[in-house]
Amino acid sequence: MTLYPVVMAGGSGTRFWPLSRRARPKQFLALATRKPLVVETVARLGRLAAPGRTYVVCGPAHARGIRRLLPRLPAANVLVEPVARNTAPAIGLATLEIQARDPDAILAVLPSDHHVADVAGFQRVLRRAAEVARAGPLVTIGIRPTRPETGYGYIQLGEPIDETAYRVKAFVEKPDAPTAAHYLASGDYLWNGGIFVFTARAMRAAIDRHLPELGKVLAALESTVGTRRHAAALKRLFPRAPAVSIDYGVMEKARDIAVVPGDFGWSDVGSFAALPEVRPADAAGNVVVGEGAILVDSTGCVVVGSGRPLGVVGLREMVVVDAADAVLVVPRDRSQDVRAVVQALRTRGFRKFE
Amino acid sequence: MTLYPVVMAGGSGTRFWPLSRRARPKQFLALATRKPLVVETVARLGRLAAPGRTYVVCGPAHARGIRRLLPRLPAANVLVEPVARNTAPAIGLATLEIQARDPDAILAVLPSDHHVADVAGFQRVLRRAAEVARAGPLVTIGIRPTRPETGYGYIQLGEPIDETAYRVKAFVEKPDAPTAAHYLASGDYLWNGGIFVFTARAMRAAIDRHLPELGKVLAALESTVGTRRHAAALKRLFPRAPAVSIDYGVMEKARDIAVVPGDFGWSDVGSFAALPEVRPADAAGNVVVGEGAILVDSTGCVVVGSGRPLGVVGLREMVVVDAADAVLVVPRDRSQDVRAVVQALRTRGFRKFE
Repeated sequence: MTLYPVVMAGGSGTRFWPLSRRARPKQFLALATRKPLVVETVARLGRLAAPGRTYVVCGPAHARGIRRLLPRLPAANVLVEPVARNTAPAIGLATLEIQARDPDAILAVLPSDHHVADVAGFQRVLRRAAEVARAGPLVTIGIRPTRPETGYGYIQLGEPIDETAYRVKAFVEKPDAPTAAHYLASGDYLWNGGIFVFTARAMRAAIDRHLPELGKVLAALESTVGTRRHAAALKRLFPRAPAVSIDYGVMEKARDIAVVPGDFGWSDVGSFAALPEVRPADAAGNVVVGEGAILVDSTGCVVVGSGRPLGVVGLREMVVVDAADAVLVVPRDRSQDVRAVVQALRTRGFRKFE
Repeated sequence: MTLYPVVMAGGSGTRFWPLSRRARPKQFLALATRKPLVVETVARLGRLAAPGRTYVVCGPAHARGIRRLLPRLPAANVLVEPVARNTAPAIGLATLEIQARDPDAILAVLPSDHHVADVAGFQRVLRRAAEVARAGPLVTIGIRPTRPETGYGYIQLGEPIDETAYRVKAFVEKPDAPTAAHYLASGDYLWNGGIFVFTARAMRAAIDRHLPELGKVLAALESTVGTRRHAAALKRLFPRAPAVSIDYGVMEKARDIAVVPGDFGWSDVGSFAALPEVRPADAAGNVVVGEGAILVDSTGCVVVGSGRPLGVVGLREMVVVDAADAVLVVPRDRSQDVRAVVQALRTRGFRKFE
C-alpha cells in the first residue's frame, strides 16, 4: 500500500492581513522560512512521497499560483474545488481521485499552512500513522501540547493499540482556560493539528455512513474521474455537497479512530502573534521579518517590513506590519482582531485590499 | 511707523518624521489645518500687514518651496540665509534689509510653524506689542500657560508698564516639573513663544551691544543691501556671524525688554503628541489625519494616513504615521524619541528618508 499526501490549500483566512489577501492567503506567505508555507509543507514530505503522488486541493482563484509554486507536481495533482465546502468534501474529492488511480491507496491529509521544526520526527510519526491506518482505522496525529492553549481542539486518548498508537476516546472542542490547564496537566489530551491518515477505502465507507449526501455526490462523480466529463460533472455536483469539516462530519462520529501522538515542533502559525514560535527573536525578544524595520527601545514585538523605513520606537508586545500597500498595528494579544479591519475594508468597498 | 512681519522658516527639526524630511521640514506640513503651517502663519496676519511688507527668512534648500507656497509675497521678501546660524543672525539680517527700506520700521518676528486658534485675539496682542515697541523696548509676547509644561522657556513678569504690558524680570530656562507647577500657580510666568516685536533701530542697537560680532557682520553688509553685490557679500560675511538664538544672545541680556501677555489658543505643535491640541478628536479621543485609517477599539491615538489602508486595532495613546514611503509607530508620550529613528537612518546611509 502506497502513501499519497493531500495538502489542503483551500484556506482563505484573514488573520495575516495585510500580508494575506483574498488572492494571496496564508499558505502562500513565507511566514516561517524564506519559502511559502505550502512549499515547505510539500518539501517536508521528503522521501515519504514522490511529487507524482502528492496532491493539493485548492480553490479556483489559487490553482495557478499553487502550480507555479510547486512546479514538480503534475498539474493534474492540483485538485480544484469549484466552490469552497469546508474540508470533508475536499477530502472526499481527493479520496475519489486517488482511489481511481490506486484502490489500495493510503492518504495523508496535511494542512498547507502549518510549520514543523523537527522534520525527521514528523516523517517518523507520519510513517507510523500510515502503518496503523493500513489495518483499517481512520488515524489522526495528535500533537503533544506544550501550553494550555485555548485556541485548538483536543483529542482525548483512549485505550492503547500498541506502543505508539491509541484509540481515540473523544474529539473535544476548544476548551476554556481552566479546562485547557487540566488537559495539559492530565497528559491524556493532544492537540488536533488537522493531520489525518487513512485508506481511501475506509474514508469512502466512513463518508457513506456519516455524510451520506457527500457520499452520493462522490458516487455520482466516480464514473467521470479521468474522463473529459469530469470537470463539468464536478462543477455541477460538487456544490451539492454539504459544507462541513472532516472533524465534525466524520472523525467525531466514526467509531474506528486511532491517534498517533507526535512531538515535532509543530505550530499552526495562527496569527502574527505566533511568529515567535517559528522565527528566531533578537535579544529583546523582537521577531523582525523583511527589510526596513528600525527598532528603538522595543521589546517582544513582531515587525514585518517591506523595504521602506519602518520606525518602531518604545513599543512593548506589539505587532507592526508594513505590506507596502497597507499597514497594520495591533497588540500581540489582540492580533486575531485583525479580522475587524478586513470587515471594515469590505464595508467601505475596498475589495482590492481585503 | 509701520509693521513688518518676519516669519522665521529656517527650522529643520526631525520631530515630525516621517512626514517631515530634510527637504520638507515641519513648517511645510499641514499639521493643524489643510494648509501648511507657514501659509497659515502668513494668513493669520490678515490686515496687520500687506504681503509686500511681509518677509520670510529660510535656508537655500527651502526658498523655492516657500515662494511657491506664498505666491503673493514679492520674491525678494524671501530672505535666504546662506547657512543656518540660529535665530539672532536671521533676525539681524531681516532687520538690516527692512531698515534699508524703512528706517522707522517696526518688525514682528514670528515662528513659521506654530498654531493659533484665536486669530483675532492674536492680532490684537500683536498690534498692542507694536505700540509698546514704538517707544523703544524690545517687546516679547508671553503666552499665558494652561498647563505646567516643562518643554518651554518662561518669561517672568516684572513691573507693569500699563494695563497690557510689563517689564520683563527674567527669561528662564525650561523648568523641571515642580518648578513648572509653581510657575503656573504663581501667575507671574508666561510661555516664551518666540514672538518678538521691536523697532529696527532698537534691535540694531541691541545687537551691536550684546552680539558685537554679529553687529560687525551687519555693518559690513549694510552698504550692499539693494545692490548687485549683496548676494556675494551675504555669502561671504553671513557665515562669520555667531550661531546663537535671539533669546540667549539678545533678549536675556538686554535691559529694556517688555512683555505683552497673550491668550489666543497658541500651540507650538511640538510633536505628533501635540496634534490633539490643534485638531479635533473623535469620541474615543483619536485624532485622525489624512485618508485610509481604519481604527478599531482604539483610544487617544494620533493616526496619520496616506490613502492606503492603515489598520489600527486595540491601541491606546499611540502615534501611528503612514507617510507613504515610510512608517512610524511610537507611544504618544515618547513621540519626541522619533529622533532616534532619524539618527538610525543617517547611520545606515538612508539619506533620502531623513
